[in-house]
Amino acid sequence: MLRRCDGRGPDALRPVTITRNFVKTASGSVLVSFGDTRVICTATFESKTPAWMRGQNRGWVTAEYAMLPGSAQTRIPRDSVSKGRAQEISRLIGRSLRAVTDLKAMGECTVTVDCDVIQADGGTRSAAVTGAWVALHDAFNLSVQSGYLEELPLKGHCAAVSVGIVGAVPMLDLCYREDADASVDMNLVMNDRGDLIEIQGTAEEEPFPVKILEQLVALGTKGTRELIAIQKAAIAYER
Amino acid sequence: MLRRCDGRGPDALRPVTITRNFVKTASGSVLVSFGDTRVICTATFESKTPAWMRGQNRGWVTAEYAMLPGSAQTRIPRDSVSKGRAQEISRLIGRSLRAVTDLKAMGECTVTVDCDVIQADGGTRSAAVTGAWVALHDAFNLSVQSGYLEELPLKGHCAAVSVGIVGAVPMLDLCYREDADASVDMNLVMNDRGDLIEIQGTAEEEPFPVKILEQLVALGTKGTRELIAIQKAAIAYER
Amino acid sequence: MLRRCDGRGPDALRPVTITRNFVKTASGSVLVSFGDTRVICTATFESKTPAWMRGQNRGWVTAEYAMLPGSAQTRIPRDSVSKGRAQEISRLIGRSLRAVTDLKAMGECTVTVDCDVIQADGGTRSAAVTGAWVALHDAFNLSVQSGYLEELPLKGHCAAVSVGIVGAVPMLDLCYREDADASVDMNLVMNDRGDLIEIQGTAEEEPFPVKILEQLVALGTKGTRELIAIQKAAIAYER
Amino acid sequence: MLRRCDGRGPDALRPVTITRNFVKTASGSVLVSFGDTRVICTATFESKTPAWMRGQNRGWVTAEYAMLPGSAQTRIPRDSVSKGRAQEISRLIGRSLRAVTDLKAMGECTVTVDCDVIQADGGTRSAAVTGAWVALHDAFNLSVQSGYLEELPLKGHCAAVSVGIVGAVPMLDLCYREDADASVDMNLVMNDRGDLIEIQGTAEEEPFPVKILEQLVALGTKGTRELIAIQKAAIAYER
Amino acid sequence: MLRRCDGRGPDALRPVTITRNFVKTASGSVLVSFGDTRVICTATFESKTPAWMRGQNRGWVTAEYAMLPGSAQTRIPRDSVSKGRAQEISRLIGRSLRAVTDLKAMGECTVTVDCDVIQADGGTRSAAVTGAWVALHDAFNLSVQSGYLEELPLKGHCAAVSVGIVGAVPMLDLCYREDADASVDMNLVMNDRGDLIEIQGTAEEEPFPVKILEQLVALGTKGTRELIAIQKAAIAYER
Amino acid sequence: MLRRCDGRGPDALRPVTITRNFVKTASGSVLVSFGDTRVICTATFESKTPAWMRGQNRGWVTAEYAMLPGSAQTRIPRDSVSKGRAQEISRLIGRSLRAVTDLKAMGECTVTVDCDVIQADGGTRSAAVTGAWVALHDAFNLSVQSGYLEELPLKGHCAAVSVGIVGAVPMLDLCYREDADASVDMNLVMNDRGDLIEIQGTAEEEPFPVKILEQLVALGTKGTRELIAIQKAAIAYER
Repeated sequence: MLRRCDGRGPDALRPVTITRNFVKTASGSVLVSFGDTRVICTATFESKTPAWMRGQNRGWVTAEYAMLPGSAQTRIPRDSVSKGRAQEISRLIGRSLRAVTDLKAMGECTVTVDCDVIQADGGTRSAAVTGAWVALHDAFNLSVQSGYLEELPLKGHCAAVSVGIVGAVPMLDLCYREDADASVDMNLVMNDRGDLIEIQGTAEEEPFPVKILEQLVALGTKGTRELIAIQKAAIAYER
Repeated sequence: MLRRCDGRGPDALRPVTITRNFVKTASGSVLVSFGDTRVICTATFESKTPAWMRGQNRGWVTAEYAMLPGSAQTRIPRDSVSKGRAQEISRLIGRSLRAVTDLKAMGECTVTVDCDVIQADGGTRSAAVTGAWVALHDAFNLSVQSGYLEELPLKGHCAAVSVGIVGAVPMLDLCYREDADASVDMNLVMNDRGDLIEIQGTAEEEPFPVKILEQLVALGTKGTRELIAIQKAAIAYER
Repeated sequence: MLRRCDGRGPDALRPVTITRNFVKTASGSVLVSFGDTRVICTATFESKTPAWMRGQNRGWVTAEYAMLPGSAQTRIPRDSVSKGRAQEISRLIGRSLRAVTDLKAMGECTVTVDCDVIQADGGTRSAAVTGAWVALHDAFNLSVQSGYLEELPLKGHCAAVSVGIVGAVPMLDLCYREDADASVDMNLVMNDRGDLIEIQGTAEEEPFPVKILEQLVALGTKGTRELIAIQKAAIAYER
Repeated sequence: MLRRCDGRGPDALRPVTITRNFVKTASGSVLVSFGDTRVICTATFESKTPAWMRGQNRGWVTAEYAMLPGSAQTRIPRDSVSKGRAQEISRLIGRSLRAVTDLKAMGECTVTVDCDVIQADGGTRSAAVTGAWVALHDAFNLSVQSGYLEELPLKGHCAAVSVGIVGAVPMLDLCYREDADASVDMNLVMNDRGDLIEIQGTAEEEPFPVKILEQLVALGTKGTRELIAIQKAAIAYER
Repeated sequence: MLRRCDGRGPDALRPVTITRNFVKTASGSVLVSFGDTRVICTATFESKTPAWMRGQNRGWVTAEYAMLPGSAQTRIPRDSVSKGRAQEISRLIGRSLRAVTDLKAMGECTVTVDCDVIQADGGTRSAAVTGAWVALHDAFNLSVQSGYLEELPLKGHCAAVSVGIVGAVPMLDLCYREDADASVDMNLVMNDRGDLIEIQGTAEEEPFPVKILEQLVALGTKGTRELIAIQKAAIAYER
Repeated sequence: MLRRCDGRGPDALRPVTITRNFVKTASGSVLVSFGDTRVICTATFESKTPAWMRGQNRGWVTAEYAMLPGSAQTRIPRDSVSKGRAQEISRLIGRSLRAVTDLKAMGECTVTVDCDVIQADGGTRSAAVTGAWVALHDAFNLSVQSGYLEELPLKGHCAAVSVGIVGAVPMLDLCYREDADASVDMNLVMNDRGDLIEIQGTAEEEPFPVKILEQLVALGTKGTRELIAIQKAAIAYER
């Protein structure tokens, strides 16, 4: 049987840590790591909404994702051709956070969550979504503590994980090397009821049967359930 | 029961037409329409590959997607903020085409498929993928006829369709109004064996259970099977 | 004597067609063709004017011209070096349309006419001007029908044609191959009284005597008169 | 009868001066003034041609036109919306210079002529063309003196002038105020045989009859003849 | 002992000239030359401040610096990689002018000083600062004459000069060749009391002792004192 | 007497920490903190030099500086107007590192040091230079260990510190609030012999006498000496 780079089982997550309050200047911030993948997530609060949605009596949550130049084995230029990929991931994170936010309850304000990858080893978008939710939670929490909001405008947790088929084996939370070898690559964003928020799957080599999709979704459901447990533990203490 | 805008059943496609040879200057070209959604797809051939893959003895297929300014009810500026969305769709089309192309068999050449939406009524990316495959096929065909390639470097068809949940009903091939009302929005790209090439699903309002995913995938499988039959009929005749 | 590529006489236009209502989403739209040159023109209406002319109680008509990537024998990159040329033509089309529009009678609104070349065989700017006028007419017509305007704010027709000296012979409506061989290249925009709106002439090889200018203007006058007759026929029927 | 701002007759040029060697760092350079319009033209020599024309054994002449921010009554931002206009004029200057240059005789080298307007009072593109020719001449001359070229690769002079209809009167060399009032605005580029290189005319208010075109061309012919005489005087002396 | 390119002593300035009213369209303008380095400085007045400082009842002075393409031995492309350098110098000039301006006394208006180098031979930023002050003075003077301001909102002069170590000798006002050979390169901006406004020094080869800094500051103090005397003479006469 | 925000004396540094190996993917990397200012510095190695210096048998060291969006109290947009400032600091860091590097001894390779501020509280450029040197050292060290280089191509240390006049008192290592109140603001980069590499000083309010410059340089000399001691301690152990 295929051995994973760190010896864990095919359905196991890498060690996950969420360090809150990593950046003092932001309303909410975490350093999240999925194994060697590490992402800084900062949430900043602005007491107005974008021009196109003014006067709708709703708030907005948006996100930006980027990789620091030194985060990969080969330096990533700041204005790189991979900008399309970064925008795509930014949009995914924003949609995922909005799916668990009660925008009406926010009032007319905006939270921007910036996810900057400082070290990449596969699964950066999953780590970003998972960490971004905690940063968003903490920014909302600060607004509640300061009396700006009455209660947390959150409808639930959201977390993301990558799954894939490597050497014919369905695997959870792929590291870079595994990801490069995967014949199917999928990202799942789910909430704390095990419902789907986003699913994005790609056949890297060969189109894959629907049966494989079902196996990967089951694996991803297990992974996001564990990640949400880690989020719950992380926010259990007053910061 | 909910009536669709044009009266068809929830699991029916809109009328689909594929007009080949729509643009004389391109190696392959079609005007594809899914109901009122109409897209021009042109495939152009270049006898070299991008700098980053020279010397690998493989070819490359890439795609670009854009909406003409007049294609929507509100004019879309050419350098618009929706550029991120266009890049994301460009990347999706490119990956889908490459998944059914034998890049090694192409030799060191590049085909670029441009998909320009001239009229948008929902499902533009699905129509683009479905039409792009025919344009790509015709460009390859021309290379075979001219003796540049020995045989078509295609491993199969690919087609795409949108599915979604509108008013609690799973529906196939959503028009713009239905798409705006959908609580779940999904795009499926599949090949002629019914295998998945891409799946992208988003919860627009509420996260959705895995069971819904299964229903939508079944509906999308039906839709892409029908689209591929239409592709086959379209390419049956010498152009 | 020199034979033209399609056998017509030196002072003959190519077959010209104007298909109205080509794009449902736009207020006015046509597919115009001058032989193998085909351009989609869409006119979109906005009920405000650009910032710099607010409060002047006048309207504005502007235009944008672009070539789709697959419209030429060699693919045209979307952000290409030929952008300067596209802007120049955009400005020409805008000035031409404004010269026959009663901006005061429009009120404070803007019509933008987008001209996207889908197949290029010489004379794209002339086809664009000629088609743009019909799209503009139809957008104004819709505003009259909807009661937004009292009457068409148009002072007359405008149409454009290319003329040139090819092999010492003055020729009307040059196709691409003729254009490449021309020693003088000129574009004329005229109204329905045979007056000049724009004249742009360039010596491609050798400077040319004023006498040649006079011959070419006479030829262009004939061409635009015929084009305006075709415009009149096209708009004669309720759409 | 209408009086011009400086009292001269309708068919008179403003005072024209051409100061050679204005910028030591350039191969050829002039400060040209048409009344209060003043333009610095510098010609720089590069011993290779642009990538797209390598190996054709021909040279290239190109031009760039810009207005300094302080050159107009209202400051012109450096990255201004009027960039389209600047590119259009750059292209006009380049074409005009190439029409009187023997590109084959140049060998594989490039001359770039930069025309920077330091003070604008109408007719900046005409002054730029007229001065650019002298800067180009001097750059070629330097190459002859240094033995790089055998003889001047010039087929003749070129000069440009604006003409227009102001208050129903055809006028030569319009200043800014006259230009703003003109109902027809035209620029002519001619060589020393009185042949046309470029003609660009625009109806600012009303389309104009062909008879007016003839009057304006006659006036422009007179103006460019006088400008070429001034160029000849300017280059008569060794610099 | 080392001879300077033009024979002057190590502590001597090059010939300096300041020609006022060089550009009629600007409120204040000069052509300043430090030997062969020549810069056009134009000051333009706008009766509002940038968005970020509205309502503060203060004015703003800003500057932009650029080199014309023909100003150096090798042509400088307009959108060149040296843009970072130009921005850095723009910021330096702006800060220097603001340090001697009474922004409160200006009221809510903005003066932009554009410094365009037409010929470069070292010390362009020093010449720019020195000329920019005179252009700013003249723009303020015009506002006083027109009654817009009551008195000149200037707290003093400011001038700049380069100093450096060339062949172990401290030198004032380096020309290009000396600058290229300098082991230490420094720019000083000072006011008319001999106080420092800006100091920027760089070790080009070897880090240098603090003692050298003191020598260079003394030399720069001498240079700016002389430059301010030249400014005083230049503005002594009504323009 | 004025109390500093954290109670330290006017000539004291904030607590400084340098954590090596902070980012595994880079050849050298540190997290450096000067009090609450924290910067990630990563050095990446490329075995070729920029195009403009190929074949000179020398290496190149360059730097890029940026602030993460969440690093300041108010979110900093990624494509912000403060880009000019970031470029200026990037250039400063690059020059400083090159002043202590033996470029000839490097061979034809490039090291790029990226400095990304994750939390800003004044002195970000000083922390960046100080940390960047350690990251550069470690990248060179890795090249020595891998046999690519024979010995460290470093001529010495370099470190930077800010100094300023706050409330008439010369102070070392200003935090954000002190920096905002400073009447003089200066940055010094020095080597381990106490020689100057860069000096940049600005009068924020009033021009300042040369005597003040001397006091600030003495203070900065003390600060950089201490910082270099901290660098030495940090690199004393095998990583």
